[in-house]
Amino acid sequence: MNFTDKLKSIQEQNDSLLCVGLDTDIAKLPASLRGRPDAQLEFNKCIIDATRDLVCAYKINFAFYEGHGARGWETIVETARHIPSSIVTIADAKRGDIGNSSSAYAKAILQDMRFDSVTVAPYMGRDSVEPFLYSEEKGVFLLALTSNEGARDFQLMKTGQRRFFEEVVRKSLKWNVKKNLGYVVGATKASELKTVRAMAPTVPLLIPGVGAQGGDLNNVVRFGCDKNGELAIVNASRSVLYASKGDDFAGAARLEAGRLRDAMNSVREKYF
Amino acid sequence: MNFTDKLKSIQEQNDSLLCVGLDTDIAKLPASLRGRPDAQLEFNKCIIDATRDLVCAYKINFAFYEGHGARGWETIVETARHIPSSIVTIADAKRGDIGNSSSAYAKAILQDMRFDSVTVAPYMGRDSVEPFLYSEEKGVFLLALTSNEGARDFQLMKTGQRRFFEEVVRKSLKWNVKKNLGYVVGATKASELKTVRAMAPTVPLLIPGVGAQGGDLNNVVRFGCDKNGELAIVNASRSVLYASKGDDFAGAARLEAGRLRDAMNSVREKYF
Repeated sequence: MNFTDKLKSIQEQNDSLLCVGLDTDIAKLPASLRGRPDAQLEFNKCIIDATRDLVCAYKINFAFYEGHGARGWETIVETARHIPSSIVTIADAKRGDIGNSSSAYAKAILQDMRFDSVTVAPYMGRDSVEPFLYSEEKGVFLLALTSNEGARDFQLMKTGQRRFFEEVVRKSLKWNVKKNLGYVVGATKASELKTVRAMAPTVPLLIPGVGAQGGDLNNVVRFGCDKNGELAIVNASRSVLYASKGDDFAGAARLEAGRLRDAMNSVREKYF
Repeated sequence: MNFTDKLKSIQEQNDSLLCVGLDTDIAKLPASLRGRPDAQLEFNKCIIDATRDLVCAYKINFAFYEGHGARGWETIVETARHIPSSIVTIADAKRGDIGNSSSAYAKAILQDMRFDSVTVAPYMGRDSVEPFLYSEEKGVFLLALTSNEGARDFQLMKTGQRRFFEEVVRKSLKWNVKKNLGYVVGATKASELKTVRAMAPTVPLLIPGVGAQGGDLNNVVRFGCDKNGELAIVNASRSVLYASKGDDFAGAARLEAGRLRDAMNSVREKYF
């Protein structure tokens, strides 16, 4: 199945735009888990089991695992393996290098680790991005406009007629021959989200920054979805993972995930 | 010792600007090594042993190791451990993420894996780069102008008065409070190398693209060095690693490394 169809299918099946970001920080885990040898993996499995019918995707930020060396790498693999095959998996790795290095990253993440998709940094241009776009079945989310303060430094700079992130979208759309390219656009930037959606009406948009980072759910859904109210993937991490600091963390995560899904669906009913 | 002093010290001690890039591709190893369980590590150790008195740095491109999963990660750690402590180690990981994720990458690479320095992508701006700049003893090489074809797509675009890579250098120099920031500038771009050196006269420049990628050694040394003929780190990977396809690979690598070092030193004698 091609990537976009897989995404649409699970968004319909679970009636959800929600992506849970597995940014699992051992220091923030419940005390009862924290000391265990596989604390991250055990926590991730509980979160997945508690939310798997409420999400369209899980996103794994590699930064939180690489800190644990080879074991962290195994935890990524084991976590991805625990995710039901109907749900989209996103490797939030933000890779991007000269061609032969990008090819090696693409092979590692999309083939060997079997992720459905990966986030990629655009700075090095076309031949750094194309190796990730090799298969219709694999999606690429190119960083366009990120949710952090530093997005102002370069992404919002003027380059002739456009701002830089718009130039990234405009140019990269030409590379989208297999129809598997999407963008990362931060939830904290509502009007720019609208801009990107207008430029790329049919691509998946990965939208982080809801919850702890303060993005507004109403605008995110209204401006991030395609014309059918789909193809926005709205990521929440900390607000779901750490909804409770106690042993009831999985139940609390489920409640928060359900709340987010329902809140987004209310917006969808209103506008689509 | 702070990062720049460590670099100057080894450049003087080994009288060398050469960095060997350990982009070790198992498919390109001599047949006698290829089948072994730790082929990458064994090869790397041989290359290091054969060239350690001829280089100022070793650069490890993570892409070539992540493809082998957790074992690849161990190979990175073991390779780094085999490098003499006087030689600068560069983690060519091209990371960059929102603040807490960049902090996790910085901890993993610079603290846990004990690399002296790391390459970082600038697209996400200041708060994605600063976590890597936390210590005077650790260096950061921010991507400015890369050696690949795709550098034209965004890095060379005009943004007002400047091209984009110049804007990256101009802005990021303000973040260099611990004097541990340098730049990646491809060897294939001689006149832009001159531009970056003029903007940042006292920082280390990591210059890939000599050898297989065709950068001109004369211009690289002339324009990449500081006023004392130092602080350019000129990387060669494939031309050294695969100087011979046979069992004499280590000796051939030593010959090629020596040839590159001597050729660069001739240029240094001429201009500095």
